[in-house]
Amino acid sequence: MRVLGLDPGLERVGYGLVERDGSTLRALAHGLIETPRIGLAARLGILHERITAVLDDLAPDEVAVERLVFSVNRKTAIDVAKAFGVLLLAVSQRGIEPTEYAPQQVKQAVVGNGAAEKHQVQFMVERLLNLPEPPRPDDVGDALALAICHCLHSRGPAAAGPGFPARR
Amino acid sequence: MRVLGLDPGLERVGYGLVERDGSTLRALAHGLIETPRIGLAARLGILHERITAVLDDLAPDEVAVERLVFSVNRKTAIDVAKAFGVLLLAVSQRGIEPTEYAPQQVKQAVVGNGAAEKHQVQFMVERLLNLPEPPRPDDVGDALALAICHCLHSRGPAAAGPGFPARR
Repeated sequence: MRVLGLDPGLERVGYGLVERDGSTLRALAHGLIETPRIGLAARLGILHERITAVLDDLAPDEVAVERLVFSVNRKTAIDVAKAFGVLLLAVSQRGIEPTEYAPQQVKQAVVGNGAAEKHQVQFMVERLLNLPEPPRPDDVGDALALAICHCLHSRGPAAAGPGFPARR
Repeated sequence: MRVLGLDPGLERVGYGLVERDGSTLRALAHGLIETPRIGLAARLGILHERITAVLDDLAPDEVAVERLVFSVNRKTAIDVAKAFGVLLLAVSQRGIEPTEYAPQQVKQAVVGNGAAEKHQVQFMVERLLNLPEPPRPDDVGDALALAICHCLHSRGPAAAGPGFPARR
């Protein structure tokens, strides 16, 4: 099963494709989609094009996205929500119903602690996927963490926890 | 010039097409796009399809949308923002950069008072467009008001106000 994690945003969207083969997780691709600072509608158009291109290129079976939580900055939250809508649309147009995970769920799945620090998540992503170096920037690490979270969750409740065999 | 007004939402989007010919305003079409209560991503997919169909059918030259303002209900605001992103995308994909107007601007343009009540706006929309009856529901009236507002604004600053000749 190939799971694409997407860390949504207007300025940039981190993505990471993880394949689960039995109890083995492997990172197949990861990267960052960025959009130019132009008018909002045109910017959303470019975002939609680029997300669609990544979906077509990577052909995931399932997609995991980070659930939108409210930031202190209302203006930013609203712009991110607009971009989030476009991202959900692009996934839906490829016939996939995305699964949303709260940040705490991702931390719980990857680190075994829903209140883990960001650097702990990045560290565990690197270890679980046997990456040669930490994924950069954080958006990409977060996207890979989402994909890992979905892989663990979709193995069924009994295995969905920090006791995943691939973790050493 | 044919201006399409769009009153955004997730559950429904009011639309109204107004043609300006010199100092005459005429309503060419108006209606409501509704979406079924299904999963968000699929719902956004249907919203995108239906908005695109309206754009293709009505072929506006310009599009006016109501600027998103914060509601008291954060959850609602975020879902409306996601739908708003999809709406902006659909317009942008037809090569049009939508113009956003704050609710106060629309009231000022249509009633001559930025703090006008909703029923005053609906009343003036009916009169300015010579409609046989008030547009229903309110979303449709709001969409027509947006189109009127844009018609008045795009006549240039000197004429953009409550002194528009068609108003009697």
